[in-house]
Amino acid sequence: MIGKVLQPDLEELIQRQNWGELRGILSDLEPFDIAEIIGDLPPEDKGVVFRVLPHGQAAEVFAHLPFEHQEELIQSLSGEQMRAILNQMTPDDRTRLLEELPSEVTRRLLETLSPEELKAARELLGYPPDTAGRYMTPEYVSLRPDMTAAQALDHIRRSGRGKETLDIVYVVDQNGKLLDDLRLGVLVLADPAANVGKLQDQSLVSVPATADREEALQTFEKYDRVALPVTDAQGHMLGILTVDDILDVAQQEATEDIQKIGGQEALDAPYPEVGFLALLRKRAGWLSVLFLGEMFTATAMGYFEQEIERAVVLALFVPLIISSGGNSGSQAATLIIRSLALGELSLRDWLRVFGRELASGLSLGVWLGLIGFLRVILWQRLGWVDYGEHYALVGITVWISLVGVVSFGTLAGSMLPFILRRLKFDPATSSAPFVATLVDVTGLVIYFTVAYLVLRGALL
Amino acid sequence: MIGKVLQPDLEELIQRQNWGELRGILSDLEPFDIAEIIGDLPPEDKGVVFRVLPHGQAAEVFAHLPFEHQEELIQSLSGEQMRAILNQMTPDDRTRLLEELPSEVTRRLLETLSPEELKAARELLGYPPDTAGRYMTPEYVSLRPDMTAAQALDHIRRSGRGKETLDIVYVVDQNGKLLDDLRLGVLVLADPAANVGKLQDQSLVSVPATADREEALQTFEKYDRVALPVTDAQGHMLGILTVDDILDVAQQEATEDIQKIGGQEALDAPYPEVGFLALLRKRAGWLSVLFLGEMFTATAMGYFEQEIERAVVLALFVPLIISSGGNSGSQAATLIIRSLALGELSLRDWLRVFGRELASGLSLGVWLGLIGFLRVILWQRLGWVDYGEHYALVGITVWISLVGVVSFGTLAGSMLPFILRRLKFDPATSSAPFVATLVDVTGLVIYFTVAYLVLRGALL
Repeated sequence: MIGKVLQPDLEELIQRQNWGELRGILSDLEPFDIAEIIGDLPPEDKGVVFRVLPHGQAAEVFAHLPFEHQEELIQSLSGEQMRAILNQMTPDDRTRLLEELPSEVTRRLLETLSPEELKAARELLGYPPDTAGRYMTPEYVSLRPDMTAAQALDHIRRSGRGKETLDIVYVVDQNGKLLDDLRLGVLVLADPAANVGKLQDQSLVSVPATADREEALQTFEKYDRVALPVTDAQGHMLGILTVDDILDVAQQEATEDIQKIGGQEALDAPYPEVGFLALLRKRAGWLSVLFLGEMFTATAMGYFEQEIERAVVLALFVPLIISSGGNSGSQAATLIIRSLALGELSLRDWLRVFGRELASGLSLGVWLGLIGFLRVILWQRLGWVDYGEHYALVGITVWISLVGVVSFGTLAGSMLPFILRRLKFDPATSSAPFVATLVDVTGLVIYFTVAYLVLRGALL
Repeated sequence: MIGKVLQPDLEELIQRQNWGELRGILSDLEPFDIAEIIGDLPPEDKGVVFRVLPHGQAAEVFAHLPFEHQEELIQSLSGEQMRAILNQMTPDDRTRLLEELPSEVTRRLLETLSPEELKAARELLGYPPDTAGRYMTPEYVSLRPDMTAAQALDHIRRSGRGKETLDIVYVVDQNGKLLDDLRLGVLVLADPAANVGKLQDQSLVSVPATADREEALQTFEKYDRVALPVTDAQGHMLGILTVDDILDVAQQEATEDIQKIGGQEALDAPYPEVGFLALLRKRAGWLSVLFLGEMFTATAMGYFEQEIERAVVLALFVPLIISSGGNSGSQAATLIIRSLALGELSLRDWLRVFGRELASGLSLGVWLGLIGFLRVILWQRLGWVDYGEHYALVGITVWISLVGVVSFGTLAGSMLPFILRRLKFDPATSSAPFVATLVDVTGLVIYFTVAYLVLRGALL
């Protein structure tokens, strides 16, 4: 929005090559807003605005740009400029950038880093993707336990400039072992002569560097912190995770789950920024798999072709019955997927969930079946349709089938996420359409089997 | 986990009425962990553990308890004890508690508050549900712009104890107008003689009290802050929002959307904690609505009964065709729902999305139709099935129908969230099952109409 308002002015300034005023306007803006403005500019002006920014600000703006714009800019800026920007970025933002670039570009960019920055980037990059080690930043302030509060504040004044956060500082012994974390507020409020190692604060919670991002997210939620220390297996302090990164992670995790639940690959970028062909590819994959699965319905129906020929009335209820199984399966699957993602449920809960969902499925099936039964009886009695002389048996077929199909749908929907988690797949892959497809095929078999048993001798 | 380990010990201490040691063990634990322990205890011991805690700690533990346990405890604790706990809770935690309780209980509890606390609670409660005004806390430190950094730190030392966060402090003029926010770290690093009003920091971003929580969440994401000030229309400072509350909001919003996308009401509590009947009710409602909608498929099929009788082969492809529409609709709906929730898309983008999704739908439909067509031809040629002499026409019917059904499904799925947002409903209500049901009925009409046009004179 800010971009749209300011854009004509900026373009004018660029045309008039009035760099001083341009820099003046930009220096009053937030990095996020400048990133938005740059996104709206024509390609040839993007680099210009960027070169006008002071390096520190340029690094922050760069971190806020969408990924394609980052890549575009890397091409257009000189090695020297890129090097300055990379050196000013916070290590975690830089790591994320390097991770997303094609490996050839990454290697070229790593060469532009200063030796010290390179070390930080390399260390961060050594951990498996999506672990705390990848998201941590080594820019924190550490204190010794034998400092006084006054000495600690002095130390922070000397060494704190440019650190990503000062809100929390860390007490570390001479071997690098993490002893405690202290809020800066506690230090400020403390008696200046008090020993840092003795200050009372919230108890220490840390995250191992190998913890995956879901685990880190859950720790933040449990303990309401703005930053958490990351340690190795021996308890040595490696870096910190900050809550703004974790909020991004939370949103990203939820987005991926929602997209998978919708029956497609996660997009990995905002919808409006994904190219048409890339979007099509992400959707066509799963859609084709589901279509191939759904082909078995034609096979199943073909198997019962003679029954349909003898009693066409049976065909009329096919969509109603199989979709009910799919709908109840979608409900169960989404409930369990989200509960697993939030850590409310874990693998060992599967049996309890099985019992509960079986009871739910039976209840819901009896209820929907009752509605279906009444629909058949009522429409016939009102003379709106003619289901033939055995209409009551047809109604009973519908009822019993719905109990079976809804129960199966509910069980399949609730157990699939557990099975996928057990097999180390993402539970969210058991999407609504995936469960529905599975249940469609089974539902047809259930329906026609019930029909055969109930209607044998009457219609069939 | 901690609860499970410590529980036997604690129960033993309670039986031996060893309150001193019990208090000692508990005082070393985090509020979250104590809440977990209390949740695992038998009901009669819950209140006991609670009474042993110091009031400040009790308030924090209380805020971490699941809602039913809170209600249970309110019944069991005396008015005096409840009053002490409520008075110690942070205002935003208290507001959330009071909001969730039945109004009778709320009124009774409000009576136990001290006049000052009551004022804070009433003020917070005056804003519409789910707005920033409901989540803010008035516990922040404010500074005057003419203070020096040294004076400001002194002021914080005197008034900062017990405030929810000291990470950010606020510069406010004598009329209560918000001028700036400063990170505590900036104050600590500053020249002690520097004027607070002149300190350079990140630029000021605030949230209006009437902003809804989605808006507040997006502001946090944009600007990477740990706390944001909340202001009235005139720019007066009312309170602050902290990032830990917003992280909870983000997770809760995503959970609600995921549950709605699954075709049910949002649960408002973790799955394992929702009672069986409450869970059933939340699921049966939408399932019944969907079932009633799906009944139109039986009506639609009934309308084409004669065609089915003449060409039973048509019935075989019904599930395949309508489910493809449902699947492509689910994909489109979940993409758009999440993009709207994250603010990546807004209402005015609908036309652009319409064009893009129409093109996607047509492409996906042509692709799936091709697979379907080849399936019919191949199976026939291989002699696995007999679709009659006009099998090629049947294949063409399937192909054309799939183009129509998938395009319609994609468009319906992508436009419904916009329509719901426009009508002030939650876009997530256009769930996967809802879209699938809508598309099932329309899909049947498309399929049989195409069949009639293609097969007229041949099979029909």
